[in-house]
Amino acid sequence: MGIGVLGIHHVAVADHADGDIRTALGVVLGLRSEHDEAGSGFHEHMLPAGSACVQTIEATGDGIVKRFLERRGPGLHHIAFAVSDLTAALDELRSRGVKLIDNTPRPGGGDTMIAFIHPNSVGGLLVELVEDHHGS
Amino acid sequence: MGIGVLGIHHVAVADHADGDIRTALGVVLGLRSEHDEAGSGFHEHMLPAGSACVQTIEATGDGIVKRFLERRGPGLHHIAFAVSDLTAALDELRSRGVKLIDNTPRPGGGDTMIAFIHPNSVGGLLVELVEDHHGS
Repeated sequence: MGIGVLGIHHVAVADHADGDIRTALGVVLGLRSEHDEAGSGFHEHMLPAGSACVQTIEATGDGIVKRFLERRGPGLHHIAFAVSDLTAALDELRSRGVKLIDNTPRPGGGDTMIAFIHPNSVGGLLVELVEDHHGS
Repeated sequence: MGIGVLGIHHVAVADHADGDIRTALGVVLGLRSEHDEAGSGFHEHMLPAGSACVQTIEATGDGIVKRFLERRGPGLHHIAFAVSDLTAALDELRSRGVKLIDNTPRPGGGDTMIAFIHPNSVGGLLVELVEDHHGS
């Protein structure tokens, strides 16, 4: 049984402190931030590209983004898939023994609920699931 | 002036030699490879997710994928954006002094023409442009 993946919601990029990648995505590709907000130790921007977004995340203090940047440097960070029912998706994954970082949905940026799957369950890839009520 | 980005075409993931990430994307998320083909030193699979794809690339010999895996390990590799006219997009980028890896379109997987922008022009991010004639 599937978990109802609707498509790619966003692709997240750990950015330089001065937003170099976000600026370049604007200058080179014409992508512009249409939403930004602060998280725990980071600041995120959402740059729409068709039906999905590029999300850039800049470290503003200690936390997972700063640790990622120290270990790997700026670059692609995770991929987020939209699902229609995040609670049901997490229940299904847990019942199959998939290791989760977030066992229950928590608020994400914009009008979303989110949860991360543990990379150990996806061959090392960090995957986020998003239930997005923006515009709905 | 923009270069006519239509949306995210695919997100590429450098996979383990045995396709661990591809397998996990199937088991965990229900994404399945609907197209695969050999490239120079790699084998790629396209897993549709809504209107975009996840592309997994496994190294099969020497080349850019093997070098990436040796340096960074498996994980997110590049992001590809669909454009309507790749030749015009590359002309526009070149006229603005954007550094390109491919100065002219070259055949990609499926019925596509592709070109990579040099990471130095996008804050270190590897970006591909795709003109996709699949189904058109």
